[in-house]
Amino acid sequence: MTSPSATQDSYPYQNEPIWSRSEKAVARTVFDAALKRELHEMIQETKQMANQINEPADLWDLEHYLTQRRKEIDRKYDYRYSQLTQVFGRLLYEKRLRQEELRGLREDKLKPIRSFAKFLAEDAA
Amino acid sequence: MTSPSATQDSYPYQNEPIWSRSEKAVARTVFDAALKRELHEMIQETKQMANQINEPADLWDLEHYLTQRRKEIDRKYDYRYSQLTQVFGRLLYEKRLRQEELRGLREDKLKPIRSFAKFLAEDAA
Repeated sequence: MTSPSATQDSYPYQNEPIWSRSEKAVARTVFDAALKRELHEMIQETKQMANQINEPADLWDLEHYLTQRRKEIDRKYDYRYSQLTQVFGRLLYEKRLRQEELRGLREDKLKPIRSFAKFLAEDAA
Repeated sequence: MTSPSATQDSYPYQNEPIWSRSEKAVARTVFDAALKRELHEMIQETKQMANQINEPADLWDLEHYLTQRRKEIDRKYDYRYSQLTQVFGRLLYEKRLRQEELRGLREDKLKPIRSFAKFLAEDAA
């Protein structure tokens, strides 16, 4: 039989770090900057693809690209504190943010961020 | 009570004109040419829209435009002989084909084509 405290320990949200007010400010800045860069990159890619359209099939390729990227970005940029360490870990792994940008976050955030980035790198290897 | 012959007359496919081999050749040429022009126009519009993208919202506008136009073109270019007079009628109304291109079709096709074009014009007025 499980004791009440053991049940509490296994509850997934119990181990989540608490974000201080200053950390939340850092997180918001980092998040917005990365999203802005990714969208800017997408604008450049879209212009390039459109410039190279020669035949009707290229139109549907562009449509497909836009839909896929929109969904991918929607999924990736999830600003919930319960998700942020994974979000930043992924952005770090994708080199969409630099470690220095995370300055101001405490070790209880930085550790899972780095750890998730490392996991993704190893997973992709 | 309806007599068997009256029932037969009201059966929708009974009044459809029969397309001769030479008329089918004309129809195919006209259809393909109009579709090609419309897709070419869409390529130009897409390039123009892409060139004018300034912010992320413009990306989703372009995606929406491509999806809508794809569906519209799919619906419009329906190469079934049962649909062709309406298809050509619509293209005539939209000035996407010229009357002269329909040369070679017999009056039993031209009449419903013109009539549907006229109906759409009046409906839009």
